[in-house]
Amino acid sequence: MIKIAVDAMGGDYAPAQMVKGAVDALNKKEQVRVILVGREDKIRQELTSYTYPADRLTIVHASEVIKTEEPPVNAIRKKKDSSIVVGMNLVKRQEADAFVSAGSSGAVLVGGQVIVGRIKGVERPPLAPLIPTEKGVSLLIDCGANVDARPSHLVQFARMGSIYMEHVIGIKHPRVAIVNIGAEEEKGNALVKETFPLLKACEDINFIGSIEAREIPHGGADVIVSEAFVGNVILKLYEGVGATLIGMVKQGMMTSLRSKIGALLVKPALKETMKAFDASQYGGAPLLGLKGLVVKTHGNSKANEVCNSILQCVTFKEQQINEKIKESLLPNKEQENNEEREE
Amino acid sequence: MIKIAVDAMGGDYAPAQMVKGAVDALNKKEQVRVILVGREDKIRQELTSYTYPADRLTIVHASEVIKTEEPPVNAIRKKKDSSIVVGMNLVKRQEADAFVSAGSSGAVLVGGQVIVGRIKGVERPPLAPLIPTEKGVSLLIDCGANVDARPSHLVQFARMGSIYMEHVIGIKHPRVAIVNIGAEEEKGNALVKETFPLLKACEDINFIGSIEAREIPHGGADVIVSEAFVGNVILKLYEGVGATLIGMVKQGMMTSLRSKIGALLVKPALKETMKAFDASQYGGAPLLGLKGLVVKTHGNSKANEVCNSILQCVTFKEQQINEKIKESLLPNKEQENNEEREE
Repeated sequence: MIKIAVDAMGGDYAPAQMVKGAVDALNKKEQVRVILVGREDKIRQELTSYTYPADRLTIVHASEVIKTEEPPVNAIRKKKDSSIVVGMNLVKRQEADAFVSAGSSGAVLVGGQVIVGRIKGVERPPLAPLIPTEKGVSLLIDCGANVDARPSHLVQFARMGSIYMEHVIGIKHPRVAIVNIGAEEEKGNALVKETFPLLKACEDINFIGSIEAREIPHGGADVIVSEAFVGNVILKLYEGVGATLIGMVKQGMMTSLRSKIGALLVKPALKETMKAFDASQYGGAPLLGLKGLVVKTHGNSKANEVCNSILQCVTFKEQQINEKIKESLLPNKEQENNEEREE
Repeated sequence: MIKIAVDAMGGDYAPAQMVKGAVDALNKKEQVRVILVGREDKIRQELTSYTYPADRLTIVHASEVIKTEEPPVNAIRKKKDSSIVVGMNLVKRQEADAFVSAGSSGAVLVGGQVIVGRIKGVERPPLAPLIPTEKGVSLLIDCGANVDARPSHLVQFARMGSIYMEHVIGIKHPRVAIVNIGAEEEKGNALVKETFPLLKACEDINFIGSIEAREIPHGGADVIVSEAFVGNVILKLYEGVGATLIGMVKQGMMTSLRSKIGALLVKPALKETMKAFDASQYGGAPLLGLKGLVVKTHGNSKANEVCNSILQCVTFKEQQINEKIKESLLPNKEQENNEEREE
């Protein structure tokens, strides 16, 4: 039995789509147990629409909701009865293996660190979304809120990302690359130049060198290592350029009668192709390196992404990712800087 | 008369398209004088195909070519008779007002700084390409090779970019924003946090605050300020995601007979829409803050982009951009750090 707590109140389509996603996951996998966290009355009302194995679903009431616009540190500290804080505490107390939320990114990141807590030896827990490419998906690590990373952080990101891609997504010997502005080893900013030789020296990862941003959508690497500021820019620009271009293609097709007829004919084929350029079928973005698992799904997640995120947590637990992360940190412990381990 | 030196040897389609672009510009604008720099025999051969005002075209022979893969600093130092070094020297000696090249980006950036030289007071010359948006174009400043910028550099970029967008592209009171990972003032890395209040205090620019990468393709600001590492990532990802998506749309349309027929019908309308998402009609990327002007066009530039880049240089000169840049630096001279001015 794997117990997944789900934030029923977070996201644009909460609670309806969160509850539906949870029910779908329960019906899909027998070993899943779901704990819906949030306003009990609202959750019960949503549940009346579905048939599901009631013995594997529980509700934990939480009276408050953290809004996206609230300053995260403050929200986590003050809203003790919010769905995010209550859900994270379930993971902390090991009453749940994982927590899935489509709520405030900031609150999920802060809560993961201060409530769930880091695995001993993990200097900084990265947020690692999957991004679509021509060839499938790549893991972009880190897109979190902690910027100005140090080289040792990036090395840990590379290790954790590699383990995740190999054992959760199923890519053998994932190619790891560091985001850079040229392919040559001597290129880059101070952080990249310092990190490059450290990654090169890691025998436990398949480091292929630098990757230019242009190569990311072509699937140039499986694990894309970057500090969070650059990672965030990549993630958001990816979504922005994608949405803009698709919008322009649609608009372009509506400009004449001729093109409108053409649009009707190409639509089904195009829809199928565009589906390939969508990473939500794999689930949400894991916050790695925690004592447990926290998964952040898109704010606009619907039931399908929520369900996939729950199933992703199951694979994460079954594949013992956290045990593998702990092991990967062992041989290098002595080299690491202890500074950030104490809170 | 405005004299533009053109690198006849740089770029994927040199010398043919470079020469054609130069001829087109001569035929379009009477006040243009072009100096083609490169192998005289090859240039003469290309010129036999065209009719043009011969009195406004000269050739300056340069026997060498700097290749894209050559380490730039070394190439600039050693290849004294390369088209890039010879062309830059024409600007330095004020025998040309500007130099346009589709050759090695690195060599153009290094040559601009060490041969042409900075305007007194400019700490770092930024490379500022125009990127297409839903609404037109935005200036992305800096995408150069000098990473790890300081706040005072970014403030100068904002000023120079603002002047360029207003007087060369013709956007009144251009909106200036700094690339950040959230809209709030307290967000960002150390560089952004330090730069934000400095930009806010500039009375000569229309600073609108932070811009998230997602908003860039929507045209969220006219001048997008960023240090070069992030700027480079944005520029290359923009091109990469764009190319990948358009490739996937084309491929998707070819999957069935039905969609192929549809594709024929939508093609003309789509082509028209996609043309709007192409910044090459505005010319190349200026390297700002130099004693003269250097414009880097895409490596795969064809005659049209070369011609537009030459016309862009004319506007630059006519609008006295460098004089405006000099003026903009005056009131803040005393606050600036002099360190980097001496070479």
